[in-house]
Amino acid sequence: MSDYFLPHLQQLQGYTPGEQPSEGGYIKLNTNENPYPPSPRVLEAIQQTTQDQIGRYPEPLADRFRNQAASILNLSPEWIMTGNGCDDLLTIITRSFADSGKTIRFPYPGYILYETLTKIQNAKQEAIPFLKDWSLNERFLKYSSELGLVFFANPNSPSGILYPKAVISQIIEQLSVPVVIDEAYVDFANTNCMDLVHKHPNLIVTRTLSKSYSLAGLRFGYAVAQPEVIRGMQKVKDSYNCDILSIVGASAAFEDQQWMVDNVKKICQTREHLIAEVRKLGFQIPLSQANFIWCTLDGKPTKQIYEQLRSNKILVRYLQYKGWGDGLRISVGTDEEIEQLLDSLRSIS
Amino acid sequence: MSDYFLPHLQQLQGYTPGEQPSEGGYIKLNTNENPYPPSPRVLEAIQQTTQDQIGRYPEPLADRFRNQAASILNLSPEWIMTGNGCDDLLTIITRSFADSGKTIRFPYPGYILYETLTKIQNAKQEAIPFLKDWSLNERFLKYSSELGLVFFANPNSPSGILYPKAVISQIIEQLSVPVVIDEAYVDFANTNCMDLVHKHPNLIVTRTLSKSYSLAGLRFGYAVAQPEVIRGMQKVKDSYNCDILSIVGASAAFEDQQWMVDNVKKICQTREHLIAEVRKLGFQIPLSQANFIWCTLDGKPTKQIYEQLRSNKILVRYLQYKGWGDGLRISVGTDEEIEQLLDSLRSIS
Repeated sequence: MSDYFLPHLQQLQGYTPGEQPSEGGYIKLNTNENPYPPSPRVLEAIQQTTQDQIGRYPEPLADRFRNQAASILNLSPEWIMTGNGCDDLLTIITRSFADSGKTIRFPYPGYILYETLTKIQNAKQEAIPFLKDWSLNERFLKYSSELGLVFFANPNSPSGILYPKAVISQIIEQLSVPVVIDEAYVDFANTNCMDLVHKHPNLIVTRTLSKSYSLAGLRFGYAVAQPEVIRGMQKVKDSYNCDILSIVGASAAFEDQQWMVDNVKKICQTREHLIAEVRKLGFQIPLSQANFIWCTLDGKPTKQIYEQLRSNKILVRYLQYKGWGDGLRISVGTDEEIEQLLDSLRSIS
Repeated sequence: MSDYFLPHLQQLQGYTPGEQPSEGGYIKLNTNENPYPPSPRVLEAIQQTTQDQIGRYPEPLADRFRNQAASILNLSPEWIMTGNGCDDLLTIITRSFADSGKTIRFPYPGYILYETLTKIQNAKQEAIPFLKDWSLNERFLKYSSELGLVFFANPNSPSGILYPKAVISQIIEQLSVPVVIDEAYVDFANTNCMDLVHKHPNLIVTRTLSKSYSLAGLRFGYAVAQPEVIRGMQKVKDSYNCDILSIVGASAAFEDQQWMVDNVKKICQTREHLIAEVRKLGFQIPLSQANFIWCTLDGKPTKQIYEQLRSNKILVRYLQYKGWGDGLRISVGTDEEIEQLLDSLRSIS
């Protein structure tokens, strides 16, 4: 039966998400979840959802959220499309713009899912390595006629680095194909590219509510682009891709901006402390504007440290990038969690 | 910017789901929702979900549901894959087995989404018409080397007809490609094909919790197939395609089989009454084993009836199939709703 799968899928290794331990007792710093709870309005809105709402199909375009978000983002709703998590949006975007005749470009190291999506869609990939100091490779800006789509996470993962708006504008302007600026972590950064959508019809900004709004379990993200682009992508999405509880919960979270901002502030403070302390232990860490940090050790392998932390019931993400090296991506937890991590790291080092 | 979309998508009309009226006061008999509420255990389970669960990523494979369903279906969990509604599963299946070099076969008239999924994936379609009495066309059983995938809803929509297991077995055996038997409505029928998965590695049975379990708003479905097939399809799905609340709610609904069976019994009784009464008004109606009926009028157009019902605040689904004719697909509501529909139909006819 495996012969029936499309040939390009037969060899594919699926995307492996970060470990979700089935037993409790772990300090989880491996999947960039928010250590603080979502706004209390979220649970409230979910608990007010009626049997009747659960029994009926949800709004196909999640208008409740679109209207809410439009007023906060100062856009009209037709600039917004919602997804069952940002992954759903990235899948829809991939299917909209790339097939086996097209190339998808993304920086390397980067979010591993871009590569998986490219392979599932049987498109060609151009994973363009950053320079060793994480600055953008000139090759990234070169137009090619086969190019169909560009992914660029900003802040990037695993580095946490935020590229300046001028660099992003350059990418968008020099590559006249759809460019996805994946702003999953942008609420932890000091600027964002949202206003560029007015100027650039080839820009799609994606955001998730999993990180800054503490809603990873709800699966909710949104994309912002010019209405013509949104309308085209809507044809590719499943009719009812967001369920009623996620629409209601996400809308409630979005309404409570102050809650998100307060949590982000705490996380950024903890992040600065974490960076300073981990550097003292000899790790190299780029300046992160996300809710995680990327730790390398002078080219020495870090897998053992990951394993030792794991045996101390602390989960971080060990990532190995071919031709680039390995490292530990550590999510910013609460102050208490980070103190325990630091104690553990000090005893290991 | 619309030029950037893949050429086959530029002309595509997206799938139009049944109308969800924004104002209340309608009797909704147009999207085959269940008129009865889901098991009270669903709301209970949702309300017990904690902030912490909402803030963390859900189980990638929805193990909670898989374990629950496995014990009820008498299978092991690796035979089951869950989806964000059955549409998500049908999308994953399409992407797993068909591309522009492959043909997707489905009967006509049938679930319109099969055609939409085929077009999005840029595969070729073979919509094979039923014979005029709704029996299967011999052409449906002909092997062709380009064939990549077959969809067959059983019971079928819009007819509501259940094809006997012998016919289904014939399809699966004669076409040695993946065959999806879409059992979205099978709980309203007197038999199903689930046991055939043990015998046929090319069979995928899909089910939804939207209809018989009254969970259309939650978006939850599952596919059953041999483990090798499930493992292959898992590579194509989004990592976290089901959110925590839908997993928890679907598991609670599935646990309460008696609730579902009781609602199905009521709906089937109402359906028989509905068929008898609507036939008296001169409509032709195939024997339905689903929660809807298909009404035609001797080849005469039915759009006006749809519109008159609509102006009486009763929504049914008007469907027009090119080369076949039109008709009204009416979902089975409560007895009260159906009495109002019948009164309205009698006053129109």
